[in-house]
Amino acid sequence: MRMVDLIEKKRDGLELTTAEIQFIIKGYTDGSIPDYQMSALLMAIYFQGMSQTERADLTMAMVDSGDKIDLSNINGIKVDKHSTGGVGDTTTLVLGPLVASVGVPVAKMSGRGLSHTGGTIDKLESVAGFHVEVQNNEFIKLVNQNKVAVIGQSGNLTPADKKLYALRDVTGTVNSIPLIATSIMSKKIAAGADAIILDVKTGNGAFMKSIDDARELAKAMVSIGNNVGRKTIAIISDMSQPLGFAIGNALEVKEAIETLRGEGPADLTELCLTLGSHMVCLAQKASSLEEARKKLENAISSGSALEKMKIFLSSQGGDATVVDHVKKLPQAKYTFELEAKQSGYVSEIVADAVGHAAMLLGAGRATKESIIDLAVGLVLNKKIGDYVTKGDSLVTIYSNFEDVSEIKSQLDANIKISLNKVKSPKLIYEEIL
Amino acid sequence: MRMVDLIEKKRDGLELTTAEIQFIIKGYTDGSIPDYQMSALLMAIYFQGMSQTERADLTMAMVDSGDKIDLSNINGIKVDKHSTGGVGDTTTLVLGPLVASVGVPVAKMSGRGLSHTGGTIDKLESVAGFHVEVQNNEFIKLVNQNKVAVIGQSGNLTPADKKLYALRDVTGTVNSIPLIATSIMSKKIAAGADAIILDVKTGNGAFMKSIDDARELAKAMVSIGNNVGRKTIAIISDMSQPLGFAIGNALEVKEAIETLRGEGPADLTELCLTLGSHMVCLAQKASSLEEARKKLENAISSGSALEKMKIFLSSQGGDATVVDHVKKLPQAKYTFELEAKQSGYVSEIVADAVGHAAMLLGAGRATKESIIDLAVGLVLNKKIGDYVTKGDSLVTIYSNFEDVSEIKSQLDANIKISLNKVKSPKLIYEEIL
Repeated sequence: MRMVDLIEKKRDGLELTTAEIQFIIKGYTDGSIPDYQMSALLMAIYFQGMSQTERADLTMAMVDSGDKIDLSNINGIKVDKHSTGGVGDTTTLVLGPLVASVGVPVAKMSGRGLSHTGGTIDKLESVAGFHVEVQNNEFIKLVNQNKVAVIGQSGNLTPADKKLYALRDVTGTVNSIPLIATSIMSKKIAAGADAIILDVKTGNGAFMKSIDDARELAKAMVSIGNNVGRKTIAIISDMSQPLGFAIGNALEVKEAIETLRGEGPADLTELCLTLGSHMVCLAQKASSLEEARKKLENAISSGSALEKMKIFLSSQGGDATVVDHVKKLPQAKYTFELEAKQSGYVSEIVADAVGHAAMLLGAGRATKESIIDLAVGLVLNKKIGDYVTKGDSLVTIYSNFEDVSEIKSQLDANIKISLNKVKSPKLIYEEIL
Repeated sequence: MRMVDLIEKKRDGLELTTAEIQFIIKGYTDGSIPDYQMSALLMAIYFQGMSQTERADLTMAMVDSGDKIDLSNINGIKVDKHSTGGVGDTTTLVLGPLVASVGVPVAKMSGRGLSHTGGTIDKLESVAGFHVEVQNNEFIKLVNQNKVAVIGQSGNLTPADKKLYALRDVTGTVNSIPLIATSIMSKKIAAGADAIILDVKTGNGAFMKSIDDARELAKAMVSIGNNVGRKTIAIISDMSQPLGFAIGNALEVKEAIETLRGEGPADLTELCLTLGSHMVCLAQKASSLEEARKKLENAISSGSALEKMKIFLSSQGGDATVVDHVKKLPQAKYTFELEAKQSGYVSEIVADAVGHAAMLLGAGRATKESIIDLAVGLVLNKKIGDYVTKGDSLVTIYSNFEDVSEIKSQLDANIKISLNKVKSPKLIYEEIL
């Protein structure tokens, strides 16, 4: 086999075979196929797309390019959740304890973020003592015992995907549905998932700005999952404004605790119940979404979900007393209020820009080397559709520096108030089974 | 400027500016833009094409990437001829002395070939003593004095094109009209041409198999030439069978001499008169094609074209007596005849395959390292449309080894005889002005 022939085959719109895709990924991973041939192939894929079979083959070839996490010693069906990413997405912190409390095993591998806030691990480190440096066997013991544990990314998972992603980033080939879908799915499968629930975000704060693009990506991922024997379901949810109220690390942990107590933001709670119900069903702990949802609602109202959060945190060295005393979380030195300059209905909260303001405060990393400030961030006091009176606080700014004028003006420019009534946006657009 | 943004711009079908194209070619030549970005751009160009302006800009950026030959000290308008390549194409050897004999300056830079036979320089080296190692000032003096001289490729001409060509070859991006056209035109312009006549071949022995593809390439090159101020004309000529009779180095020199004497093959003679008439007009040595053609026919019949060949050869150290005594050219040890196995009309002579048979005899280079045998090759005794009687010789094989069974069977398989009358193919399909 010669790579140039495979590039021409794809360029001409023909389907690559399983063996050809394996040859490409193996050769690219071991360096025998150079970047300049791979980038030409990626651009040909950008224009010609990939068939369902090619997508499944590419996903599994990337899974096979490196280590795979073996979760077979964990009892039950391991369901993984993946979000395509947005602003203020606290669902992972809520869902872990929530579905674990009704018996679904959650064996979560997480990373640090390069975004508006840190990743799940950064956020959890707001809890004094919490750490993810656990051995694999300890991790598996913890999940069997508590139904929930988090471990840092370890091993050499999907090196082909890592290498490909870096290449796509500099060759104009990021924005290709088959390449995005296979990249996400290969990582989930290599991390040991038996079943996968996908939260595909759409709106200005999401990678997929339009519902059509989000639907196409969701369908692509669901097809791949089901084609490679991992039951996969996707929902398409709104990211036209930040999810929940909090954007920041400790602030989001606090919001997760409130949500587990039944006192969280309505949208975050609803999204967690929707995603959670699917997880419970995928794990075969309920036979209908209605039954699953009832179980989760009971876990919240009975306090068992909150109790699971405490067990989860303390099992990994964390100070579980923060759950009842959230003031023990890192606190910012200063708070400021962004006041509404006129009365009316909030009509727009540009998620991207609000996320960027949080990053400017220090909540997220601009580069890999940036150090995160766990205490700082933003809490929205109003969301789209809410009525505000001039002078009301739209956002509370938690900062460790005094001059937040730049942050204020960025927020001001990106939160719009209208004299006309505005409808709150739909939270969940579609489910793709 | 960032290369990734320019890749995305082209990928999305937008037009690159002059400055952007210069940035790309400069960066690729100096190595600051890596192969993997360039190959992604090339594949995007494959799918999105290039506008007329982009093509002109790319051509001139490649011209500017290296040395340029300065022919300004040569009197008159320097017209260069370029053929897209075929089998048995002896036109350059004929045209040089032919048009020079009516006053058109021919300052030819030539190379060695990697094809069925050698290049123009290899062929001319069949003449004992002939060499192209002349200094630039000597070359210019020769052209002013004799109107014709040949020099080997020297200097660092269009390094961007060389680098790009090598990359295209391994990334499935050779077959793109804008990339082919800009590559050819940049080389002609860097070599100092004021005006250009293009012989675009079509048929099974040509790169452009179909007349439509040949026309598209011809139009692309003519537009580029005219857009960058080099008057350019193209003809589309037949390469469904080899041109003329001879395929081989010394054999083609002999054929060129015969053609200059007025005794050459009809198709080669006609093509040389057609191309030559355009060259004479482009050089403003005649005011109509008819007048130009008459001048060239006179040069042949009066013997002045043949005389010019002698002057040309002796001026560069060659033994001009070969012109009157062609037996002085390198002679093969053996000759064999390929006999017709049945009577009928020759219906097909697959040019590619016949050329390959000549290469197997040693007439051409399979790799850069191959050593050419100047004496060997093939002479067709029949062409498409000719009637043959069983046992007639179709081809004379000139070989320096005795066992030519492989060559014979390859020729046999690729020369077809039909019982029905067959029309001789059209020689010149179109002229594109």
